[in-house]
Amino acid sequence: MKTLGAELSVVHSGATEIRFPCADSVSQQHGFVHAGAVTTVLDSACGYAALTVAPEGFEVLSVEFKVNLLAPATGEFVIARAQVKRAGKTLTICTGDAFALRPEGEKLVATMLATMINVPLER
Amino acid sequence: MKTLGAELSVVHSGATEIRFPCADSVSQQHGFVHAGAVTTVLDSACGYAALTVAPEGFEVLSVEFKVNLLAPATGEFVIARAQVKRAGKTLTICTGDAFALRPEGEKLVATMLATMINVPLER
Amino acid sequence: MKTLGAELSVVHSGATEIRFPCADSVSQQHGFVHAGAVTTVLDSACGYAALTVAPEGFEVLSVEFKVNLLAPATGEFVIARAQVKRAGKTLTICTGDAFALRPEGEKLVATMLATMINVPLER
Amino acid sequence: MKTLGAELSVVHSGATEIRFPCADSVSQQHGFVHAGAVTTVLDSACGYAALTVAPEGFEVLSVEFKVNLLAPATGEFVIARAQVKRAGKTLTICTGDAFALRPEGEKLVATMLATMINVPLER
Repeated sequence: MKTLGAELSVVHSGATEIRFPCADSVSQQHGFVHAGAVTTVLDSACGYAALTVAPEGFEVLSVEFKVNLLAPATGEFVIARAQVKRAGKTLTICTGDAFALRPEGEKLVATMLATMINVPLER
Repeated sequence: MKTLGAELSVVHSGATEIRFPCADSVSQQHGFVHAGAVTTVLDSACGYAALTVAPEGFEVLSVEFKVNLLAPATGEFVIARAQVKRAGKTLTICTGDAFALRPEGEKLVATMLATMINVPLER
Repeated sequence: MKTLGAELSVVHSGATEIRFPCADSVSQQHGFVHAGAVTTVLDSACGYAALTVAPEGFEVLSVEFKVNLLAPATGEFVIARAQVKRAGKTLTICTGDAFALRPEGEKLVATMLATMINVPLER
Repeated sequence: MKTLGAELSVVHSGATEIRFPCADSVSQQHGFVHAGAVTTVLDSACGYAALTVAPEGFEVLSVEFKVNLLAPATGEFVIARAQVKRAGKTLTICTGDAFALRPEGEKLVATMLATMINVPLER
């Protein structure tokens, strides 16, 4: 997250928003943000969303996720929004969409479906 | 890739290997390499594997991928190895495994199943 | 679809709904509808949704999908609803949710993220 | 499984093989076996593979899976082979490949990456 310059901008119960600037350091040969960076932020957004519904004393790890890359991530910022689809005792399923913020508006650039697991916080 | 300090170490037809050092800048709160970094390198390894079988004059973009995170990525290096599962005219399906290189040997830390698309090189 | 007794109940541009009865023939040892049957209907709902936005003279095949199974599919009917997330020239990305229709209301039982491809109709 | 006429033909610790005949009842408009039937059998093969490494007193449920459909499933039989990729205390990750048995040999038609969960057997 720090490497990407990302910040968690909005948190509700079961929903989060993270945004990060489209810097050169996370861009690839075509000049748009690398799929890996978009995926990282979607994963983080899903993880934080799951955390808002996790039992006390637990943290959240990613079990797995799938991401579809829908359009080149070009713009000033990338915004990832995630929601909890179902919160179980052990597993939480989240979806997330990433948007590129462009002068003409938000453009959907990627979508994720993720499985998170609650694990007891180590002391 | 540059941000991660990754290098493409082995390339065969339909198979690639990428390794990168487990630096602090790509690690997360638990001290192991962030899932996003592991995913980025697996995605790159799959993309390069697909590229080795792409028609001339084409490049490769990621359509989508799923990754399962299997163990914490701790060690000196992460190594991602990818293979082409099926190469079609338009789409190439790849699998990739990521291993953490530890003193006691290689530990499987993540596995990916990815769909890549051949797109004509722009001039 | 015939084996499952499924019927396409609602079709809009970019959205579909399919429902099928929870028969014994598609149930498994625990008495709820087999994940495979739920997946089949979600896949079909995504395929039909993609078809509503496909160019004329094209049909749609599933490239891949991921499904999360969220709750046992018990009830009178299973209803699958799918939407187009992004329609490209070659690929269409869809999401779908499956609900079990129970006396107390609809219960979300599975969710899918799918990639479909437009292929020319053979004559 | 019964609806598909499938039978579990080979079981080792961490690996299974299921085969089923390509009957009309599971075929679709193009004359090849419906993706849903192939997926169902791959899911079952992954489930049985996970079961071979589950703790005593536990059964296995599918959390999620992704499948890539690689070629039309035509032939006399479809064979699904699954392996455990990683067995944890709670979750087991499996991969599976489905092959169509044709006069000229086996043809890879689909591949799956699945997450299974161990749940205590109800009495």
